[in-house]
Amino acid sequence: MYAYALPKPYLLFVGDIEVPTLVKTGMGVRDWAREDCVGQWRLSDRAHDLGLKELTPAAAVANGAKSLLISVAPVGGHLPQAWIAHMVSALEAGLDIVSGLHDRLSMIEPIARAAERYGRSLFDIRHSDHIPIPIANGRKRAGKRLLMVGTDCALGKKYTALALAKAMQASGITADFRATGQTGIMISGAGIAIDAVVADFIAGAAEVLSPDAVPDHWDVIEGQGSLFHPAYAGVTLGLLHGSQPDALILCHQPGRTHVAHFKGYELPSLSEAIEAYLPLARRTNPRAVFAGISLNTSLFEMAEAQELMAAIENDLGLPVFDPLRSDLGPVIERILTCV
Amino acid sequence: MYAYALPKPYLLFVGDIEVPTLVKTGMGVRDWAREDCVGQWRLSDRAHDLGLKELTPAAAVANGAKSLLISVAPVGGHLPQAWIAHMVSALEAGLDIVSGLHDRLSMIEPIARAAERYGRSLFDIRHSDHIPIPIANGRKRAGKRLLMVGTDCALGKKYTALALAKAMQASGITADFRATGQTGIMISGAGIAIDAVVADFIAGAAEVLSPDAVPDHWDVIEGQGSLFHPAYAGVTLGLLHGSQPDALILCHQPGRTHVAHFKGYELPSLSEAIEAYLPLARRTNPRAVFAGISLNTSLFEMAEAQELMAAIENDLGLPVFDPLRSDLGPVIERILTCV
Repeated sequence: MYAYALPKPYLLFVGDIEVPTLVKTGMGVRDWAREDCVGQWRLSDRAHDLGLKELTPAAAVANGAKSLLISVAPVGGHLPQAWIAHMVSALEAGLDIVSGLHDRLSMIEPIARAAERYGRSLFDIRHSDHIPIPIANGRKRAGKRLLMVGTDCALGKKYTALALAKAMQASGITADFRATGQTGIMISGAGIAIDAVVADFIAGAAEVLSPDAVPDHWDVIEGQGSLFHPAYAGVTLGLLHGSQPDALILCHQPGRTHVAHFKGYELPSLSEAIEAYLPLARRTNPRAVFAGISLNTSLFEMAEAQELMAAIENDLGLPVFDPLRSDLGPVIERILTCV
Repeated sequence: MYAYALPKPYLLFVGDIEVPTLVKTGMGVRDWAREDCVGQWRLSDRAHDLGLKELTPAAAVANGAKSLLISVAPVGGHLPQAWIAHMVSALEAGLDIVSGLHDRLSMIEPIARAAERYGRSLFDIRHSDHIPIPIANGRKRAGKRLLMVGTDCALGKKYTALALAKAMQASGITADFRATGQTGIMISGAGIAIDAVVADFIAGAAEVLSPDAVPDHWDVIEGQGSLFHPAYAGVTLGLLHGSQPDALILCHQPGRTHVAHFKGYELPSLSEAIEAYLPLARRTNPRAVFAGISLNTSLFEMAEAQELMAAIENDLGLPVFDPLRSDLGPVIERILTCV
């Protein structure tokens, strides 16, 4: 049922990219799947340093690497012409290639030919048109599901889901992180890039992503977009319906007041967001409830962040946490008891 | 800006399809774009009769036809093997081909080769991956917009939009029907199959579909899906956001109590539906209001239908109409005055 089973461990390709924000994918994979990273491959000393062992493709293969992960986002999402030869040499060395670029590696002739010649695979994980995804059927599935939703995009839904899945596993709960975007897929080695499926199949993809499971198993589902986003709300609603969450976590970044890059679109308050999400969630799972609020407090000092979280917790009566700073015990307890 | 400019008039291809429900597309085009239909082409006397002039492709060309319209839906959405030769002969006779099938004609080699040989075009209108669609920007556009929304799928949104656009034009209002599905596209000769775009681009496609216009121009936008549908609500919400409707029409079929083909999914009441749609519509157009209720009363006698409509009108304080049975004057007046 998984959309991908990516060959791990990875050699992380940084190329000649120097700007750290363009290496976010690589940082995410390094931080959340450190054990899957054999090393990094940089084309210049000025390229961003992920702090991994410097390896050539051949050396990485000797160290057990199974695939080259393009862990950078070149501006525009296209593969620079100059990298084609490097991709070919990685294939020749015995690595598969995993890419989240807009360009499909399988459509770039020298790369496709080399993959065939050396018997290697190309994983274009942004594209899912080769995955058989059905129309959603709306049937309630067995097992439990926790979904991240947000007041906006890009404020910590993926990190929240990863941190919660890890903490749940650590406390003995059987839980799986379910990736809905490319970095999440690279980290977990499976998933579906939900915003890349054809519109009719959004909820169907979400149903496939978290299949029937034993009653006390938890799928911890990375969210996408936001119900309040003028471009992406359709993706968010289809994912919400198909995920049939028993519990929801609302993710927010304090201090952010408007939809990023969309002038005139104010963000809702936390309680407005809860009121908007909940009836829509209950369409496919009438027992859906919110179990906590995840705050990305990276812009605040620790003391200030704690004060802020305590105030919101007092206000809304839900556990409030920063996935990278807080003890996750209270929210996990709420997740387990609220269903 | 239009996604398609289909070559009209059409020769309607019925093939050997006998079951009337599989010829719904042809009936829609005949009923709503009669002046664009030169004739019909049936492969057998038992095939469904649309009541149009029987013409071969060559005779249709002599009568001015510009394209062959595949106006039937074979079971499974695939082009029967036996039809390939007929498609080739239509191209040879000088017709382009318009198809809403899942299969792309351009991927069926003998058809693609024949199109090239005879210099003809193939329009696979279910597929929009060749149309440059941007991510939505959420900017408020000039001109006015009327969007159909529903309690469920397949209960009269397209016919409501077509009837309202026609009646508005007849009363001197500058109005355009904007098609969001394949039959609508065939009828109007333009539009975007909104459920076929990649999920990230739903709202962007809706923005492209109804571009800036003069202040008193109305786009009458065919709806898709339903906010209450466990499979398609994402499409509906993206279309709602991108359309930025000033006025909405709620479409419903009295007597229908559950989502068609989805066990356990009750339909909302009309007032529940209005309450659910309105705040979401106001995210991209804070002035959005409902202007009327369209009922598909085809299962009721006329007197019964009128009683039903009067009762709902009294209840909700909105004009209630059946697009195929009622005087549309009152709802059009409400549309013009509510904005």
